[in-house]
Amino acid sequence: MTASEIRALFAVASRPEVVSLAGGSPFVSALPLDAVGEMMGELIAKNGASALQYCIGQGDLALREIICEIMALEGIDARCGASPDDVVVTTGAQQALDLVARVFLDPGDVVLAEGPSYVGALGVFQAAQADVVHVPMDDLGLIPSALSAALEDMAKAGRRVKFLYTVPTYHNPGGVTLPNERRDEIIEICARAGLLILEDNPYGLLGFDTEPLPALRSRVREGIIYLGTFSKTFASGVRVGWILAPHAVRDKLVMASEAQILCPSMLSQSAVTAYFTTMPWQEQLKKFQGVYAERRDAVLTALDDFMPAGTQWTRPAGGFYVWLTLPDGLDSKAMVPRAINNRVAYVPGTGFYADGTGRQNLRLSYCFPPPERIREGVRRLAATIEEEQALRATFGVAS
Amino acid sequence: MTASEIRALFAVASRPEVVSLAGGSPFVSALPLDAVGEMMGELIAKNGASALQYCIGQGDLALREIICEIMALEGIDARCGASPDDVVVTTGAQQALDLVARVFLDPGDVVLAEGPSYVGALGVFQAAQADVVHVPMDDLGLIPSALSAALEDMAKAGRRVKFLYTVPTYHNPGGVTLPNERRDEIIEICARAGLLILEDNPYGLLGFDTEPLPALRSRVREGIIYLGTFSKTFASGVRVGWILAPHAVRDKLVMASEAQILCPSMLSQSAVTAYFTTMPWQEQLKKFQGVYAERRDAVLTALDDFMPAGTQWTRPAGGFYVWLTLPDGLDSKAMVPRAINNRVAYVPGTGFYADGTGRQNLRLSYCFPPPERIREGVRRLAATIEEEQALRATFGVAS
Repeated sequence: MTASEIRALFAVASRPEVVSLAGGSPFVSALPLDAVGEMMGELIAKNGASALQYCIGQGDLALREIICEIMALEGIDARCGASPDDVVVTTGAQQALDLVARVFLDPGDVVLAEGPSYVGALGVFQAAQADVVHVPMDDLGLIPSALSAALEDMAKAGRRVKFLYTVPTYHNPGGVTLPNERRDEIIEICARAGLLILEDNPYGLLGFDTEPLPALRSRVREGIIYLGTFSKTFASGVRVGWILAPHAVRDKLVMASEAQILCPSMLSQSAVTAYFTTMPWQEQLKKFQGVYAERRDAVLTALDDFMPAGTQWTRPAGGFYVWLTLPDGLDSKAMVPRAINNRVAYVPGTGFYADGTGRQNLRLSYCFPPPERIREGVRRLAATIEEEQALRATFGVAS
Repeated sequence: MTASEIRALFAVASRPEVVSLAGGSPFVSALPLDAVGEMMGELIAKNGASALQYCIGQGDLALREIICEIMALEGIDARCGASPDDVVVTTGAQQALDLVARVFLDPGDVVLAEGPSYVGALGVFQAAQADVVHVPMDDLGLIPSALSAALEDMAKAGRRVKFLYTVPTYHNPGGVTLPNERRDEIIEICARAGLLILEDNPYGLLGFDTEPLPALRSRVREGIIYLGTFSKTFASGVRVGWILAPHAVRDKLVMASEAQILCPSMLSQSAVTAYFTTMPWQEQLKKFQGVYAERRDAVLTALDDFMPAGTQWTRPAGGFYVWLTLPDGLDSKAMVPRAINNRVAYVPGTGFYADGTGRQNLRLSYCFPPPERIREGVRRLAATIEEEQALRATFGVAS
């Protein structure tokens, strides 16, 4: 899908009669808005002179210290060499991706990425004129042997691979999570090949059933650039993300960011700092986990109840997304108009591949609608799939 | 100066014993911080669900409508085809510059720009591997005949000129303003040559002596991309700027911005919208104008009182900056350590040229320090210049 196709889809999906399982908006209404408002009021009244001013390009030190505390929840701490000095604050993790692409990618470079992969990352890599080569996943995430094979293929073809882009935990859009043993394997394969890893971890603290998994970056001191964001643990509207980068790279990222935006918003940074220093954010994180777990349950129960035979899906243990595989012969992109007509929206799988595959897949987001709407949306989607199957049975082709 | 040199300079300049006439930070403490805090508190309590959420990549419509009201103060309104539909909200005007560079510039392109020119714009153009060709200014801003000559030179040399980058009003760093007749001339020259104008107008509403001047964009419907910002009329810490672009270009800018940051901060956008709909912003703008006018008076009076013969400077009618020309034989960059030693900081003129010129010039910012500190800073600078002259008289070279 092109950017404009996705935009058109979201415009339609936002109509009130449509159940949107398309967008990935976090449910920020779960925040105690009165209390956050009070916090913001005090922040400006007391520290407005700095909160409304420019700051340094790297980002405010107080926030970078909090970022290190947050990363420590997933094992990234001083023991593996993480320090506020090596953190660069960005305008959401999207700018982080863009900065890494600017600093590292030349036209014709190869980026390895899971297939499927985050659409916003694919857009950045393509804008940098890099070629994305997908490495297959299974229900346990990226397949180590497939990664090795891809590296061999690239070496044989004489292609320069710049990094592996991976979302190891609660994958977007895959809904799967790399277990610990595979984490070690992936790191080892990359280390052997001298390949940089770009670890993107927006959802790591939104697990439902377990303690946070140790991030890839927590397992090694070198060879990984790590991206994080407050979009899901606090609020997407602040647009605050970050990069933890090797010291030698950090300055280049800061300079690239200064050229792009001068400095990140001090209002947003101060809001995040105030939130994580004055508010009961651990409790709120549990609340977010509870909200999303309930919605994950709703989507999985509805899928079990309504989906026709031959449909498959992943069973996420955290994050926002289920990845669904349609029965043979159906095309998720061609099916969009019929789904919209049935008042349900999703993102077709082709959006998550750089190579045109994914027609048999689609992504369902369960993060935003309440459980009963999710159930109704899945019911409508199942009906749509059944209609497609009936069409195909009658005419030999669907849609 | 390289980016790291400028960063080192600002680090030194921020020491409390140094009077910094280097940075361009607006005096946000002039805002009624208690009232702004109350406004923010209400905003989150009432509209947090949207203010803390993602928005569309183009930026929030309510804010784009306010942007059109603000632009109308400088004559940019529906009569010249301005509409919220053609506004793209950005993370400060710096991102606006970066997006325009991304969409328009190819390596080897030429950008015409005033000499001197805004350092942040030069950085963006150079990052895009464009060549900046400076067009001289006098006390009335860009010289039309020099623009014509530059265009002829480029045509003869077979170079592709992509646009003219200009800050017509209260120029940074020049401190000069293009009068109305010259505005017409510049527009006509560019129209004849089919040359796009990139009009950057951060200071237009911060005039001290007159009503706002009509922007270049107010005079024609086509051929101009216009950049604005709330950094100086409200707060730099929100990082909210904008682009008003021809309709055909707007979509490309939005897509480039989505790839870069997904969407601008809704927290910041909501703050700006609330400020301009619920607060007495016209009065506050007058207050800002008064604060900066007083500081402009302080810097000009001090320059008259202290500067040795042979020093020249511009007399700004608005904005933040005075552009100073040292007596013959002195070098502003070489003089920096001596100035810092004398506890005053400025930005050497070389930072504002892409071609290494500007050694005899420096920029003084009067926006942030209070009047008595400005006076003391200028006194120290004058002493520094006199020391340099004495050195030069004794040894034949300065510093």
